[in-house]
Amino acid sequence: MKYIIIAIGDELLAGQVTDTNSGAIARMLEPAGWELMRVEVIADTAEALEDALAHAMRDAHVVLTTGGLGPTKDDRTKQTLCRLFGGTLIHSPEVLANVRHVVEARSLKLNELTALQSMVPDNARIIQNDVGTAPILWFERPDNRVVVCMPGVPFETLQMMERKIKPALLERFPKRETLIRHTVVACNISESNLAQILSDWENALPEFAHMAYLPKPGVVRLRLDGHGDESIVCEMDRLRDQLISLIPPANLMAVADMTPEERLIQLLGERKLTVATAESCTGGTIASRICSVAGASRVFKGGVVAYSNEVKSGVLHVNPLDLERCGAVSSTVVEQMATGILELMQADVAVATSGIAGPGGGTPEKPVGTVWMAVASRRGVRSVLRNFPGTRDRVIDRASTAALLDLIQELSADVER
Amino acid sequence: MKYIIIAIGDELLAGQVTDTNSGAIARMLEPAGWELMRVEVIADTAEALEDALAHAMRDAHVVLTTGGLGPTKDDRTKQTLCRLFGGTLIHSPEVLANVRHVVEARSLKLNELTALQSMVPDNARIIQNDVGTAPILWFERPDNRVVVCMPGVPFETLQMMERKIKPALLERFPKRETLIRHTVVACNISESNLAQILSDWENALPEFAHMAYLPKPGVVRLRLDGHGDESIVCEMDRLRDQLISLIPPANLMAVADMTPEERLIQLLGERKLTVATAESCTGGTIASRICSVAGASRVFKGGVVAYSNEVKSGVLHVNPLDLERCGAVSSTVVEQMATGILELMQADVAVATSGIAGPGGGTPEKPVGTVWMAVASRRGVRSVLRNFPGTRDRVIDRASTAALLDLIQELSADVER
Repeated sequence: MKYIIIAIGDELLAGQVTDTNSGAIARMLEPAGWELMRVEVIADTAEALEDALAHAMRDAHVVLTTGGLGPTKDDRTKQTLCRLFGGTLIHSPEVLANVRHVVEARSLKLNELTALQSMVPDNARIIQNDVGTAPILWFERPDNRVVVCMPGVPFETLQMMERKIKPALLERFPKRETLIRHTVVACNISESNLAQILSDWENALPEFAHMAYLPKPGVVRLRLDGHGDESIVCEMDRLRDQLISLIPPANLMAVADMTPEERLIQLLGERKLTVATAESCTGGTIASRICSVAGASRVFKGGVVAYSNEVKSGVLHVNPLDLERCGAVSSTVVEQMATGILELMQADVAVATSGIAGPGGGTPEKPVGTVWMAVASRRGVRSVLRNFPGTRDRVIDRASTAALLDLIQELSADVER
Repeated sequence: MKYIIIAIGDELLAGQVTDTNSGAIARMLEPAGWELMRVEVIADTAEALEDALAHAMRDAHVVLTTGGLGPTKDDRTKQTLCRLFGGTLIHSPEVLANVRHVVEARSLKLNELTALQSMVPDNARIIQNDVGTAPILWFERPDNRVVVCMPGVPFETLQMMERKIKPALLERFPKRETLIRHTVVACNISESNLAQILSDWENALPEFAHMAYLPKPGVVRLRLDGHGDESIVCEMDRLRDQLISLIPPANLMAVADMTPEERLIQLLGERKLTVATAESCTGGTIASRICSVAGASRVFKGGVVAYSNEVKSGVLHVNPLDLERCGAVSSTVVEQMATGILELMQADVAVATSGIAGPGGGTPEKPVGTVWMAVASRRGVRSVLRNFPGTRDRVIDRASTAALLDLIQELSADVER
């Protein structure tokens, strides 16, 4: 089933909020074979919505809209759709009861503006919102075109998609197509170098299979899709195994769709080892990425964000003389940070970073983007100097990815010995 | 000037990558009065691109496309546009020289696939890409419709927008309209409560002014826009001051568009104070948010991510008996974490978190989402219990925002005394 999402909101077009709902909805509906054809991000005006709806209903049977259902003056979706589908707004005691319930569960009192959420179109099916005050509206045309309007707050959108909207959509359109997807993640290799290695194999792929390259700093995800029925399952497994065998082992991060932090947690769990972090320029990003994974508490001992030199020496026991002689951004200091945190946290493996994230602080010898990194384990400590181009955000992001990949490499090497 | 962005890529529709380029471009062009009408996120097929271009060129003079220019097989933009505008691909020695230069600056060798980037449409103006291998293509129709195709990798897109594309667009379409924008940020108050307080004032706004509510967990940004010429500047200042005076002082976080972490750094800088963090369930997210702000090094001493009890007692000096008696998620422990880190880092103010981020680890007494937080300063220490609904990501995000707001409140209270 093909569908289109219309994301409504001036704040999306102004770049003040990023639309993450569409991607999350796509990931949710994809296992059922639903294909997102297009996303239109539009302003919160009746004209923009009318135009986008006409364009979308021309191309797809199902149109999902997000946003534009809030109680404030700048949300106009409900009125516009009600009118377009030829209905009028009526008061719904059931919706009011639900809104009151949601508001009171938050220990708040229902105010007049929020109570207006109980005005709903008489020509729509109403799906009660368990986690917010805007009811979900389901419009249907005689030609089987379905438009579902849901709130735009990501938590509400995704909770309600999962609990009620997705089940209702699959019930309404039960026919399923099969999509078989394998994802393999390569690291420390460029998209074009990978494409050259895989070129012959890719050109020989059967008609039903398609591969896409999804590069991110430090990693390239290879997504192998097969469209067909059950008969392609074995063939797709074989193609995945071929793909894996073609990637140089040192560049193969994972044989499933996972982030470096997820792969790290998995490796640590398998080997019953623990990790610790000592961060200067990355400022806690490595730790927070590790902790973003459920189950991190079993393998993550803890970390220190050692932004100042006092903390590097006072907490991590970096030699103050070395700090003075070599500077904080140096091989000597970063190695002492790594061994210091390994000792302090009593962990099996540790990573440390010290660098210049910018925009200030660069020198001709150590320009912005210069980062020393060290990995320490019971096998010893080793450090490496890297330089990441770009803005502060980018330096921090790339340096933390590189640190996670270094830990993965250390653990992989551990096994080879 | 109104414009439309077409973001190209199967990975965007599959929800594997989020389109952040459109928002960044919107923020970049907005000071010049450029208004983003719509964003269309489409698949990497010739049909989707042709359809989207026809729809976009109907409505706007300028269409910007991002993505679809990579060297791999799944990118088809260049061929499609070349054909649509009636040209053919020719080899450009200048582009090849530039591609070679970019590749060699990364200490890599130019491979065949990347060299293909030198094939460019003979009917397009070519803008050399300083930071990547895909050249930027500028097509122009006799009716003044302009289509600019740029790469989709965010770093390349934004660097090239800033350096070359934005200047070229402003030169090509020099007429500017005035948009005056004021943003005020409220905290710890719901959108609907705020809307009720502001209702009368909002209804009385002059024709040229419009206000939008942009809620995020913990904060609501209020964006007041005025469209007109220079004559509205003073009136817009007056409206902003009125808006500020209507918000309860305890709920006014900032009178400019800034995040809690930016406001915190600003307050600390003004008062010449330093901060430290001790995080359990938030896992380094508070530290990384503080460090994401340029200049953080002047006010951030450092932090400890104390995920295990050993680290809480060994590094932060939490009493092991209290850990056993009260549990890690308790007022007693979180207050000792806050005073412990204040002492360890020799900071002026500190925040600590201890809670259950989930999905596992919850109990009937302390369900997932239970978080104790403490703020310590020279004035003493105080703690508060909060409960955040939702997934692990959401608990961590909301808890770290609440911690930053607690620090801001502590610093604001400091001044009032």
